[in-house]
Amino acid sequence: MSSRLLGFTAATHTPFDASGQLRLEIVAKQAEHLQKQQIPRVFIGGTTGESHSLTADERKQLAAEWMKVTRGTPLEVVVHVGANSLEDCRALAAHAESVGARAIAALAPSYFRPRSVDLLVDSMQQIAAAAPATPFYYYDIPSMTGVNFPVAEFLQAARDKIPTLTGVKYTNSDLAGLQRCLKLDDGRFDVLFGCDEYYLAAATLGVQGGVGSTYNFAAPVYHRMLAHYAAGDLPAAREEQHRSVLLVELLVRYGFMAAAKTVMGFLGVEAGPARLPHANLTSEQKTTLRRELETLGFFSWIQ
Amino acid sequence: MSSRLLGFTAATHTPFDASGQLRLEIVAKQAEHLQKQQIPRVFIGGTTGESHSLTADERKQLAAEWMKVTRGTPLEVVVHVGANSLEDCRALAAHAESVGARAIAALAPSYFRPRSVDLLVDSMQQIAAAAPATPFYYYDIPSMTGVNFPVAEFLQAARDKIPTLTGVKYTNSDLAGLQRCLKLDDGRFDVLFGCDEYYLAAATLGVQGGVGSTYNFAAPVYHRMLAHYAAGDLPAAREEQHRSVLLVELLVRYGFMAAAKTVMGFLGVEAGPARLPHANLTSEQKTTLRRELETLGFFSWIQ
Amino acid sequence: MSSRLLGFTAATHTPFDASGQLRLEIVAKQAEHLQKQQIPRVFIGGTTGESHSLTADERKQLAAEWMKVTRGTPLEVVVHVGANSLEDCRALAAHAESVGARAIAALAPSYFRPRSVDLLVDSMQQIAAAAPATPFYYYDIPSMTGVNFPVAEFLQAARDKIPTLTGVKYTNSDLAGLQRCLKLDDGRFDVLFGCDEYYLAAATLGVQGGVGSTYNFAAPVYHRMLAHYAAGDLPAAREEQHRSVLLVELLVRYGFMAAAKTVMGFLGVEAGPARLPHANLTSEQKTTLRRELETLGFFSWIQ
Amino acid sequence: MSSRLLGFTAATHTPFDASGQLRLEIVAKQAEHLQKQQIPRVFIGGTTGESHSLTADERKQLAAEWMKVTRGTPLEVVVHVGANSLEDCRALAAHAESVGARAIAALAPSYFRPRSVDLLVDSMQQIAAAAPATPFYYYDIPSMTGVNFPVAEFLQAARDKIPTLTGVKYTNSDLAGLQRCLKLDDGRFDVLFGCDEYYLAAATLGVQGGVGSTYNFAAPVYHRMLAHYAAGDLPAAREEQHRSVLLVELLVRYGFMAAAKTVMGFLGVEAGPARLPHANLTSEQKTTLRRELETLGFFSWIQ
Repeated sequence: MSSRLLGFTAATHTPFDASGQLRLEIVAKQAEHLQKQQIPRVFIGGTTGESHSLTADERKQLAAEWMKVTRGTPLEVVVHVGANSLEDCRALAAHAESVGARAIAALAPSYFRPRSVDLLVDSMQQIAAAAPATPFYYYDIPSMTGVNFPVAEFLQAARDKIPTLTGVKYTNSDLAGLQRCLKLDDGRFDVLFGCDEYYLAAATLGVQGGVGSTYNFAAPVYHRMLAHYAAGDLPAAREEQHRSVLLVELLVRYGFMAAAKTVMGFLGVEAGPARLPHANLTSEQKTTLRRELETLGFFSWIQ
Repeated sequence: MSSRLLGFTAATHTPFDASGQLRLEIVAKQAEHLQKQQIPRVFIGGTTGESHSLTADERKQLAAEWMKVTRGTPLEVVVHVGANSLEDCRALAAHAESVGARAIAALAPSYFRPRSVDLLVDSMQQIAAAAPATPFYYYDIPSMTGVNFPVAEFLQAARDKIPTLTGVKYTNSDLAGLQRCLKLDDGRFDVLFGCDEYYLAAATLGVQGGVGSTYNFAAPVYHRMLAHYAAGDLPAAREEQHRSVLLVELLVRYGFMAAAKTVMGFLGVEAGPARLPHANLTSEQKTTLRRELETLGFFSWIQ
Repeated sequence: MSSRLLGFTAATHTPFDASGQLRLEIVAKQAEHLQKQQIPRVFIGGTTGESHSLTADERKQLAAEWMKVTRGTPLEVVVHVGANSLEDCRALAAHAESVGARAIAALAPSYFRPRSVDLLVDSMQQIAAAAPATPFYYYDIPSMTGVNFPVAEFLQAARDKIPTLTGVKYTNSDLAGLQRCLKLDDGRFDVLFGCDEYYLAAATLGVQGGVGSTYNFAAPVYHRMLAHYAAGDLPAAREEQHRSVLLVELLVRYGFMAAAKTVMGFLGVEAGPARLPHANLTSEQKTTLRRELETLGFFSWIQ
Repeated sequence: MSSRLLGFTAATHTPFDASGQLRLEIVAKQAEHLQKQQIPRVFIGGTTGESHSLTADERKQLAAEWMKVTRGTPLEVVVHVGANSLEDCRALAAHAESVGARAIAALAPSYFRPRSVDLLVDSMQQIAAAAPATPFYYYDIPSMTGVNFPVAEFLQAARDKIPTLTGVKYTNSDLAGLQRCLKLDDGRFDVLFGCDEYYLAAATLGVQGGVGSTYNFAAPVYHRMLAHYAAGDLPAAREEQHRSVLLVELLVRYGFMAAAKTVMGFLGVEAGPARLPHANLTSEQKTTLRRELETLGFFSWIQ
């Protein structure tokens, strides 16, 4: 087990049945699918996993199930434990450690927002302390949380207060800030990039791992992208990266969350509908989405 | 019991002990204090109550305690059941109904946000349906949730889908939108105003009830304000309203949430610290806050 | 001439011909129309006047024309001189004084924004100093400029540095901040309210003057509103205020700027199209707008 | 003359004297300095040039001076003609063409903002049409204008309506949108990247030219960066890119605009103070800025 979370970590969907209830038996299918796609690791219960739409108990069930189905496989599990209630976070963190998560991550409270870097550090410290033997990643995603401190400043303020602080999931378009994180303390922190559509740009800046939702259903595109990049064939690498741009653009038009879950269904992994307040696709929309994906070439891209 | 929530409803703090754990024995003190202040009703577990910083279980305990201590008293209890997870909301709503809440209210999910009025209606419908015998209020507070649809449009879209829809807690500075809500269906909806510092302005537009945090500790100011207003003495009414402006301005400088809880302590109701990510006052800050309140005249205002 | 700008000041449109060029001969019609409507004063070249879409030279021509057509009439002229370039502002301010403006007003630069109250004061000082004999109003409109300092703090910081500082045009929904301005220095500053649709609410808080665009075409509604209010008939006053809410709501659906100019045309004051980047109404839209106004009762309201 | 604006275009400062008046004699110094730094091209009167703080007449004087001092040199001049008033823009565009600008560029009106891509296209069309023989670049900078349409959608809607449309100055952190622009119509459009601190990331995605302010004073850093990148030495390229991050971070702490102009002064090009509403550095701040730059190694980086 490397000390870094290298390569592409899939931020998995939380599977629901038609009525929106947790459907844990799909987790094994997700795990199997991702291993076939050469994905080394999952990030569960994050934004893609509809974290904030789950109850704390559901999040624990989900984590337990993932640990169970991945036992004895090389697939690693990172458990997202962020929430608005730090009490919930602490319970989720302790649970994740108890079931053997590879690492935990937490985003900032976002209904009430920390007004300073120090309050953010104090909040994260409470969470990390509940899983004292598990690597902790801060999950920066200002477009969702509205919490937008320079991440390098967070890392500097937190490094002496949070012994398990290992890195950051950086879902942020500020690539200047990204470089600050990468350079800090001679590259001590593991910086995982969260914007799939321009992972290539971040790789040039030194990133070695990514966490995102499109790695669930378009992994071959990214594997080829990195292979071309490693071989020095930039035009071919860009072509693959651009495919992910086209794909995301298409899904966004249908409502990204539900469209992405629908795509999983097309691949035989029935992730089910998204919970409210997300919209879901009508049957007609599913049909046209499939047709648009075909026209795009998506199904051949991922073979 | 009027069918409307007339007058000033105090949005109560959730009491914690020094370590940030729920301290339910303070609830009785809060109830007693508010009755002395001629406050007819409480709104519990809302923004002032640090809703999103509580676990679902804590919220149930809090509601149960409030119902217990107010049994046999004229103090009515409105339970806020809004959260990001609609599953949590439904459980909280059902619990609130089971313990006999006067009404429930819910704000919109805010990590994932409904992208249309219809999705907001669908979300609120799920919640309201879990408490089918209890009046439901939509709690509009766009400054916190980022969900900012014209409330009148929500009410129009929701009125036929949510049988228990009774009104709205309108914590929004858009007083044009307020008038639309007040006028809708000949004034069918109970519109509670949530900006204490200009309740007087809303009253002129037709509002008959307010929900806010300053009614916990400055009720006499507002009672005098309305008495002067009813007597046609606008300058005197404005003078009282301006006092609440000065008070809030002062508390905001110290961090409103923790400062307000500190003020409750000054009045003998030990609400305790605020939870992270809120900051708390140092002992020194508490001392200077008390002094500034004295200078302002606060302690004489509320006698 | 009162030292305060009491009553309803119409924020006038800038008249253009079909090709979007300044059409100064309409100004006399505007002036005549407003006097018939019992409007004591105009605010020219402001947001309603498409200030930022005009060249500095056009703004001078406009000011000169307004001064010419109002000479010898009771209609007072306030000239807006705010712009991004303080050099332009100074020239406009000096020109306004040279043609005898009743007062000048300026909003904050908004492409580059002052980062502190002091920088805002310094910016306004430069402008005011170019018209040393003319009352100066700061024009606060954060929804357009993105400059959102507490106005009372601006007034406190500016009062000793800007000798001509007389008041503020407060186009801001924060009615707590409004009260702070009204109370400052025992009410020394003239606070003009800029949200027509809830002028009544601001009047209750002590406001004595308003500046807005709907006073161009719906003045009788507001006159009746204040008469009812003065007579203690709140329901009737609210009814009139609500009419302005309905009117604005309707115009917003068509694109407020162009729709409002279209309404002026319906009243015989051909203000012409709005300049880009505003959209204009098609002939069809004009027809349906007129019909919707008729259905609303607008044409009878304003007789 | 290439049909593309390859390499690093310096977005130049507008030189002022101590009282803030235009100081045109510095332009020749700027041109000389930039040629020594191997900069092929300038972008004048843009955001770095304090565009919106200049009068239209000053902008013409500035353009004329730049054309005069660069006549007979290889330094190309792109003139920014964007403003809030399209009348001003048209005059500036016509002037730029008359003095022989290499290209013109315009950002969107930002006080009044176009509400649709089509209104943005119509606005840009008016400007471009006033310089029918000069290549036109749309200048996308949503962090300043608040106008945030997908640029590829603008290009698609504009390509048939604006014959001179050649490309875009893309000052936007959305690198997915960047790729869409680069790929559109087989790469027909010239996409200039505007975020100096991660130019390297954009280059990997296919960008071939950048426009920015740090190319005025740190060009050698970027030249080395690209040389290392071309040689396949990514770590060395990153090291140089990170230097620009550190540099910008430092200047931002002092207020970027005035600090950058101060740095130009350190290099012997007296750009003077920034105009209000920007703050300027005190003498003390200038001293500590110089010291911090020395500590950083800046003066050796640029030799």
